[in-house]
Amino acid sequence: MVKVSIITIGDELLIGQVIDTNSAWIAQQLNKIGIPVKRRVAVGDIATDIETALNEESKHADVILITGGLGPTADDITKPLLCKYFNGKMIVNEEALANVRYLFEDVFKRPLTERNIKQAEVPDTCTVIQNKRGTAPGMLFEKNGKFYISMPGVPHEMKGMIENDVIPFLVKEFNVAHIAHRTLTTFGIGESMIADKIIEFESALPAAVRLAYLPNYGMVRLRLTATGLHKEETENEIDHYFLLLQQQVKDHIITNKDEPMEKIIAGLLLERKKTMCTAESCSGGYIAHLVTSIPGSSAFYDGSVVSYSYKAKEDLLGVDEKLLLDNGAVSEEVVIEMANGALRKIGSDYAIAVSGIMGPDGGTPDKPVGTVWIAVGSRKKVRAKKLHFRFERKLNIELTAVNALNLLRQFIIEEG
Amino acid sequence: MVKVSIITIGDELLIGQVIDTNSAWIAQQLNKIGIPVKRRVAVGDIATDIETALNEESKHADVILITGGLGPTADDITKPLLCKYFNGKMIVNEEALANVRYLFEDVFKRPLTERNIKQAEVPDTCTVIQNKRGTAPGMLFEKNGKFYISMPGVPHEMKGMIENDVIPFLVKEFNVAHIAHRTLTTFGIGESMIADKIIEFESALPAAVRLAYLPNYGMVRLRLTATGLHKEETENEIDHYFLLLQQQVKDHIITNKDEPMEKIIAGLLLERKKTMCTAESCSGGYIAHLVTSIPGSSAFYDGSVVSYSYKAKEDLLGVDEKLLLDNGAVSEEVVIEMANGALRKIGSDYAIAVSGIMGPDGGTPDKPVGTVWIAVGSRKKVRAKKLHFRFERKLNIELTAVNALNLLRQFIIEEG
Repeated sequence: MVKVSIITIGDELLIGQVIDTNSAWIAQQLNKIGIPVKRRVAVGDIATDIETALNEESKHADVILITGGLGPTADDITKPLLCKYFNGKMIVNEEALANVRYLFEDVFKRPLTERNIKQAEVPDTCTVIQNKRGTAPGMLFEKNGKFYISMPGVPHEMKGMIENDVIPFLVKEFNVAHIAHRTLTTFGIGESMIADKIIEFESALPAAVRLAYLPNYGMVRLRLTATGLHKEETENEIDHYFLLLQQQVKDHIITNKDEPMEKIIAGLLLERKKTMCTAESCSGGYIAHLVTSIPGSSAFYDGSVVSYSYKAKEDLLGVDEKLLLDNGAVSEEVVIEMANGALRKIGSDYAIAVSGIMGPDGGTPDKPVGTVWIAVGSRKKVRAKKLHFRFERKLNIELTAVNALNLLRQFIIEEG
Repeated sequence: MVKVSIITIGDELLIGQVIDTNSAWIAQQLNKIGIPVKRRVAVGDIATDIETALNEESKHADVILITGGLGPTADDITKPLLCKYFNGKMIVNEEALANVRYLFEDVFKRPLTERNIKQAEVPDTCTVIQNKRGTAPGMLFEKNGKFYISMPGVPHEMKGMIENDVIPFLVKEFNVAHIAHRTLTTFGIGESMIADKIIEFESALPAAVRLAYLPNYGMVRLRLTATGLHKEETENEIDHYFLLLQQQVKDHIITNKDEPMEKIIAGLLLERKKTMCTAESCSGGYIAHLVTSIPGSSAFYDGSVVSYSYKAKEDLLGVDEKLLLDNGAVSEEVVIEMANGALRKIGSDYAIAVSGIMGPDGGTPDKPVGTVWIAVGSRKKVRAKKLHFRFERKLNIELTAVNALNLLRQFIIEEG
């Protein structure tokens, strides 16, 4: 089976200034066509480190995908290095030059400089992969039966090349195996309790089917992966075991697709032709952001009031000032009124309201950092629940959002 | 100088189901104490691949930090593998056991199972790093003068160990160099144009000072990094060059700190004791989320109306129905009225309003996907600008947010 290594190049990855999202995205695309990623390596903009990575990864893999270091500036050393590594000399690629000229003269409306023209130079030992979304062309090299494909680190430029060129090339070149994944998500049960529950199922899995536990935000995703040469057989085999797995944990499953909580809510609402809205204090718009990240969310999502100040809670949601003063903003009474206010003012079928203290400051002995009240409901009934998270601000906000969406999920299902 | 490699273990990293944020965070912490990360490698839950990574990274680095694979389930093979690799045998660590018992009996209120007790077992050849945030202990091994530190992959558990144990250990064990970084951000000028502007500055930099270009969201961050044995000398040297760099690009700098756009806005508002609010259609609460991610943001942020539906725009922001019907929601007229409505209803000093089409659907020949109107202003004056992004939904939303915040930044500065 063909093996792939990904090398990402850039100091910013090694000092932690940038999070590597490219590798995960590439891995997803390759998995879809049945090519597993064996290793991922990140190195800095240092010639010897890049060379070492090229030498080593060519021992581990048949295809080495490289991103980063192709920009027009002095810290971008990948292109000259590859030219030397693959015994080439630099030549101007006319198609790449035409593209750079088009981008500068027609799109950016900026003068084309010597430095930009240099972007169109490539080693004469490579096959050029044209960059339809930027100035730096990609390069494909072959050496001792191994393929090396260099792409820019800018995500949407790299993505264009993977989709348009790299994937078709790999499919043509290799007799790829089939990889199938099935993922379900559980809520409210720990990793080790699940493991005890399915111990017999797990130990009876054939070698070609693997199970992974992916805990996250109080949920545990269970992922089955099957590998085989024949698509239909592999799909049938994984479907068989996935059905068994679902039966084993059926009381805890919230979805049998690999989808985040907001997608589950979207599905429930679309099925029922219902809409929702949110009234967010401590989560600061994050629930709205999650929901509106879904394409077409305007079909089931009406809007949110992010009411950080007392005034916003009063004026936009109609929360009584006295209620705020008597109970504080983080209270059962206020969060229920926020939900009622949102339902009334925005006119949706369902609402979520949250109010809490996300930290690092703002806690009191009564209401320590991490305290959050969540209300969910419809115009007929609104109910509230208090939760307490013990983490840093960002994670507290994310946990608040996922738990609030889960409470709404339960409410919608109970309503039928 | 001591060199570090990070090995992250987990199939989820190699199929792209999870984005590796741990490595970036670890790298940041190490950089602060002057320890560079040389390489980062990700491998799956496969014994031979983990062993190969351990063998190889011990050639590249003095310290190998390992995360992942320590859970209680069958796919977590790292602990037995390390036990064998370092010639140990498994023994129960009493302190770790007391911690597991406390977590299950007192915190989770769940029965302690055999599987949980196994979490407290460690190879007898390691020094145990207690896990104050979870059940899996960390392990420190030494072999041929190299150190290997294994930690859980759960981010907040790993972070606790790095802060409380790993960093103090490294500082004590190694005579660390000093690393200094300075980062400024430019807006509205391309990477290659900056490079041409500062070509002399860049070529005159001494070997111990490096410059990196980090383009992102239409901004380019310029980062200087200096390395030296003496803290004061290194800091003086980098300050000298950072001042020169700032002079070179002074017309384009939006901040000379390594801070995101929302932090710049926070600074401007706090300085002036002013507040802001937002009215978001297409950005769906993402601007509110960015701003409220900042601790203490309630001091300058009042709230947002996420008005996805026409009704929300009318009822919550007071946008005239006729204006919506005549011009459409994505129009100069509506976005200005959204800003005015937010200022009136929320009562802040400044407002941002956005309305656009983020895709993938919803575009028209007149208003293609990516079209967005942004209004910024105060009660005295509101102005609007049309922008057009050509990317996928998520990136279009992010670009909308950053550009909207930048327009407000310019507005606040012009007002003085």
